[in-house]
Amino acid sequence: MIRLSLNQKTVNRWSLAEAVEGCARAGIESIGIWREPLAAVGTARGAKLVRDAGLRVSSVCRGGFFTMPEGLARTAAIDDNRRAIDDAALLEAACLVLVVGGLPAGSTDLPSARRRVADALQELAPYARERRVRLALEPMHPVYCADRGVLSTLAQALDLAEQFDPDVVGVAVDTFHVWWDPDLDAALQRAAGRIACFQLADWITPLPADTLHARGMPGDGHIDFRRIRSLVDATGYTGDIEVEIFNLGLWARPGDETVDLVARRFAEHVA
Amino acid sequence: MIRLSLNQKTVNRWSLAEAVEGCARAGIESIGIWREPLAAVGTARGAKLVRDAGLRVSSVCRGGFFTMPEGLARTAAIDDNRRAIDDAALLEAACLVLVVGGLPAGSTDLPSARRRVADALQELAPYARERRVRLALEPMHPVYCADRGVLSTLAQALDLAEQFDPDVVGVAVDTFHVWWDPDLDAALQRAAGRIACFQLADWITPLPADTLHARGMPGDGHIDFRRIRSLVDATGYTGDIEVEIFNLGLWARPGDETVDLVARRFAEHVA
Repeated sequence: MIRLSLNQKTVNRWSLAEAVEGCARAGIESIGIWREPLAAVGTARGAKLVRDAGLRVSSVCRGGFFTMPEGLARTAAIDDNRRAIDDAALLEAACLVLVVGGLPAGSTDLPSARRRVADALQELAPYARERRVRLALEPMHPVYCADRGVLSTLAQALDLAEQFDPDVVGVAVDTFHVWWDPDLDAALQRAAGRIACFQLADWITPLPADTLHARGMPGDGHIDFRRIRSLVDATGYTGDIEVEIFNLGLWARPGDETVDLVARRFAEHVA
Repeated sequence: MIRLSLNQKTVNRWSLAEAVEGCARAGIESIGIWREPLAAVGTARGAKLVRDAGLRVSSVCRGGFFTMPEGLARTAAIDDNRRAIDDAALLEAACLVLVVGGLPAGSTDLPSARRRVADALQELAPYARERRVRLALEPMHPVYCADRGVLSTLAQALDLAEQFDPDVVGVAVDTFHVWWDPDLDAALQRAAGRIACFQLADWITPLPADTLHARGMPGDGHIDFRRIRSLVDATGYTGDIEVEIFNLGLWARPGDETVDLVARRFAEHVA
């Protein structure tokens, strides 16, 4: 399937080797790789697996979580982001996705948490540039603002990204996170040349109890994928399109079934 | 408590008469009234209860739910909104809150649903003007975009409201719905003279399974109430401040306990 990328999270029970083989069986040429299953096989061995299979790496997921104030935890977070950049470089990934993190525990100071995202980017961008890794700031649905990502809109992500070279800092556009945004059309127009990653998941209702795992397969929910895809196309983005679904029901199914479903839904709702 | 208003939904098990008496016992001078408990006692009798107790009515909740295409259901929705305007007029309420509605069943056409909100307002505004009722467009947290309210930001609500006289169409600002918005400061500045209703509820995590009942008492979550209140103050808003909490745990408690807690938290986090 041209441009379809399987994000590993969609087949969460598979190891990296299994996901690589699953892509090959389904004729999928690109994969979004998560750092935990990569670490489980060893970064170098994982990179060889992917390279030997001839797969493109559409993203490494993920860096970020650097909204805490100065201190040991923040230093550790910045160090871990450098390792994530190293991983992305070794995999020759199209980008490293950054989920910036929520409010620090006990804090209600949202403006300060947002300022610290800008500070972290200033620290990480030179390291990313040296290693030719593109960072992809991911705006998160406001349902995650408190506990996962204080970047809430694409415009806000662009405000940050535009302070850097587009080859160093871009944005990740995930339909699940941005579909509701009344300013989406204008923000996507502005995102021309900045889209480093394009991900698909549907918004389903009623929202499952665990919001982290509340995403649906394209076609199961309320998002107009063709409309958003045409807006993304209009920016000139020609990269891979990842299907990334966090969903406990889906994860309980055999991986090959899920991959088939992904390919069918992609053909039906997106391609 | 000066300016504190008890929204009836916070003491959901109480009848209107019980809520009116509860306010009197607690020294609360204002109430936000829901149409269902009002209908249960009869609109005229309910209005007399409130008037005899000397309470201000800070809002009537609610009208709206008019995003469906032309047809019988839409006609019925517009008619019901006229009845809601009548209720608000009889109660001499500061406003009628409008929760506009989500996507029609099976539709993914968000732009059209949003256009129909503008159409409905055009139909209802003259009726509201004649009866001297102020409509309050309520932007809803994007978690509700699909199933409850396609107005997702304060700026978007203002775009609509500004097509009308500010005495006829204003906005409702609920901390739960707007706290995450990176453009909140600018939107609130722009909202000067348009704020018809100011409501408080906290954003708690993990988000309770049923998103409708996911709201917390001020101080239990992640919202900086003083910061938002100072922005609202800066607009010149001097009206009542409602505490409106949809929360099953809270609803299970005796009403007087809840009212005491509301008053304490208001003093601690807002006043």
